[in-house]
Amino acid sequence: MDLNVDLDRDIPKLDWEPFLATRTQRMQSSAIRELLKLTQKPDIISFAGGLPAPDFFPIREVEEACRYIVREDGAEALQYSATEGYWPLKEYLADSMHRYGVPATPENVLLTNGSQQALDLIGKILIDPGDYVLTGRPTYLGAIQAWNAYEAHYHTVRLDEQGMVVEEIEHAYEKAVADSGRPPRFIYVLPNFHNPAGTTLTQERREKLAEVATRLNLPVVEDDPYGQLRYEGEDLPPICTCIPERTIYLGTFSKTLAPGFRLGWIVCPEGLMKRFVQAKQGADLHTGSLVQHVANDICQRGFLKQHVKRLREVYRVRRDTMLDALSELWPAECEWTEPEGGLFLWAQVPKSIDTVDFLQEALKEKVAYVPGVNFYPNEDGGFHAMRLNFSYSSPETIVEGIRRMGLALKKALGS
Amino acid sequence: MDLNVDLDRDIPKLDWEPFLATRTQRMQSSAIRELLKLTQKPDIISFAGGLPAPDFFPIREVEEACRYIVREDGAEALQYSATEGYWPLKEYLADSMHRYGVPATPENVLLTNGSQQALDLIGKILIDPGDYVLTGRPTYLGAIQAWNAYEAHYHTVRLDEQGMVVEEIEHAYEKAVADSGRPPRFIYVLPNFHNPAGTTLTQERREKLAEVATRLNLPVVEDDPYGQLRYEGEDLPPICTCIPERTIYLGTFSKTLAPGFRLGWIVCPEGLMKRFVQAKQGADLHTGSLVQHVANDICQRGFLKQHVKRLREVYRVRRDTMLDALSELWPAECEWTEPEGGLFLWAQVPKSIDTVDFLQEALKEKVAYVPGVNFYPNEDGGFHAMRLNFSYSSPETIVEGIRRMGLALKKALGS
Repeated sequence: MDLNVDLDRDIPKLDWEPFLATRTQRMQSSAIRELLKLTQKPDIISFAGGLPAPDFFPIREVEEACRYIVREDGAEALQYSATEGYWPLKEYLADSMHRYGVPATPENVLLTNGSQQALDLIGKILIDPGDYVLTGRPTYLGAIQAWNAYEAHYHTVRLDEQGMVVEEIEHAYEKAVADSGRPPRFIYVLPNFHNPAGTTLTQERREKLAEVATRLNLPVVEDDPYGQLRYEGEDLPPICTCIPERTIYLGTFSKTLAPGFRLGWIVCPEGLMKRFVQAKQGADLHTGSLVQHVANDICQRGFLKQHVKRLREVYRVRRDTMLDALSELWPAECEWTEPEGGLFLWAQVPKSIDTVDFLQEALKEKVAYVPGVNFYPNEDGGFHAMRLNFSYSSPETIVEGIRRMGLALKKALGS
Repeated sequence: MDLNVDLDRDIPKLDWEPFLATRTQRMQSSAIRELLKLTQKPDIISFAGGLPAPDFFPIREVEEACRYIVREDGAEALQYSATEGYWPLKEYLADSMHRYGVPATPENVLLTNGSQQALDLIGKILIDPGDYVLTGRPTYLGAIQAWNAYEAHYHTVRLDEQGMVVEEIEHAYEKAVADSGRPPRFIYVLPNFHNPAGTTLTQERREKLAEVATRLNLPVVEDDPYGQLRYEGEDLPPICTCIPERTIYLGTFSKTLAPGFRLGWIVCPEGLMKRFVQAKQGADLHTGSLVQHVANDICQRGFLKQHVKRLREVYRVRRDTMLDALSELWPAECEWTEPEGGLFLWAQVPKSIDTVDFLQEALKEKVAYVPGVNFYPNEDGGFHAMRLNFSYSSPETIVEGIRRMGLALKKALGS
């Protein structure tokens, strides 16, 4: 059809600001995602994103699974499906979660559009405007972005090399009660290979956290996108192992299979699951049937486990390469974490350097990172810190990027 | 890893209700979706869902597009991507929207996880708790479900055989102002082959609606999932053609390509687009890269247009079959709409029959439908009405289902 309507006429402009809800004033574009746009030029070496290495995407396996699923199961894989998720995939996840220490049955698992949607649904069902969330500082900025839309506030707990300093949770709890007149809604924790800090919560602190959460009667949101990507040391049981009745555990295929699937999952107690399902129905009916069927096929064939093994090798080398390059090429005054897994490390530069300002210098040298302040929900720290991603770039590119930044840092320090 | 944690121990039960946000009390499982679970037994003839016919899914084309995309473009199609959506698909949609009378450029288009996510994002950025939305009665229940989560209230406008009685909008506006002390947030309208009513808004009323919206300074949400599925008569220009500056237009691939992709789109003015993008970032970062690439490949090859032509033929036959069967097999006291397109018609039964109660009788005869009251946001009507879907079942099955319901109706009427 061509309606031959005059669409080239001048369309009046409407000022939409007066039509916006109060919560919309709190929404901001993610600094990282805006930054990523600037750094997507091919000549920039980007340590900014949290992107997996595309050269290790399981292209052949995805292609085969797509062909098989569409041909054999197309009528189901292309149709509307259950809000809760595709049952065989829920069974697979419950089983693998169970082996990992999370007491899950298929009924406890909800498929989401990546972990980001899980964070959004958590905000939707748990946060009233003005409520406080307890989180580490620094913390994952996608969580801040999700919960700002529900008008959350934050009290934060310091991180050290052993992860969140759980002894300080009770103090943050008291501040939240003092400021809002009610308890905070939950504790948000990234126990493994923290984004952005790169730290791992020790076994002792996991137990302590479970104890504190129980004593204060607080739910725990355990965000574990990188748990499978450990390059050294032993796996530690999730916090969910200790206190499944009050933990909302988040997993994702984005770092192990492919982010472009947008597939994550929530494991939570049955009493809460029906609320997540209701919220998910209103949000988008269900997660894509096709990608769930394809992911399930790949998982059931046992491919994912061997693929993750391979990724661990690849990323371990990249992490080591970045650590070695930092030692060799950066000024002695700088410090950084040495993550046992995951995609990121956290670097501290001398206090004379502001990492927001310094980004301009880095970009002149065609290198990008994310300034630390973006990971502080109250914007009260991280001024001399930055997050560096080591999963996306090849080892050669990592060395070159660290070299360039090292030169720029030395220049800025006048050394 | 196997942690050998004792997961068979008794896990304490936590009462989650005290932890829920206020808005969560408003969330309910969709009656339709709960019902669908009951009616998914293979021996039930279901007129309840809004499912496309799976036997006409373009299996071969999806299979070919998946293979091509994963092989040729896998590094991009499996990676994180822009919140706004995949640019070539935005170009395609802007172009086809433009031909359809919607003044769109790629910058005006945002890809969403089906239209349901568009409805959710609209609620998120526009509705404060206690705000009113103006909508027809009956109206699409997915919209009610999405906006209940933002604590919306509703004033409704009657529908007749020409669609929403737009002359009554101003009265509903005044009631909203009287009840909440502020203007309602927007007018929600389904102009083409209304779900559930099956009616189409006339050209005269479209123009009148645009005029009223402008005079009252209200945004319009134009939900058009079935616009391409017209079986007779001429296309009418979208309301967006008249007032693009204040219209949020929603489209979807769910009825033309496949619902399992979860792909829909918003067209809206530039000033509002950045807010949708911010909300979408927080909600799930972006819509699946893989399905966007696959849909784009299918569209760019020109397949979708010819496929929609075929669907129009198939669904026209099913609609006619249902209309003929109703005339022949239902009691003379019943009435129904005769939709020019879409997936649904709306049937009225005599006032002695309550369609919620009668559903039990229908299910005994192994037939399902959705009772009318589910489409009344204030639950103040539809007691003797029902929605019947004619797209999912084969013509033979449609005749058999209508026959069974006819017998049950006659029995209930004592005739």
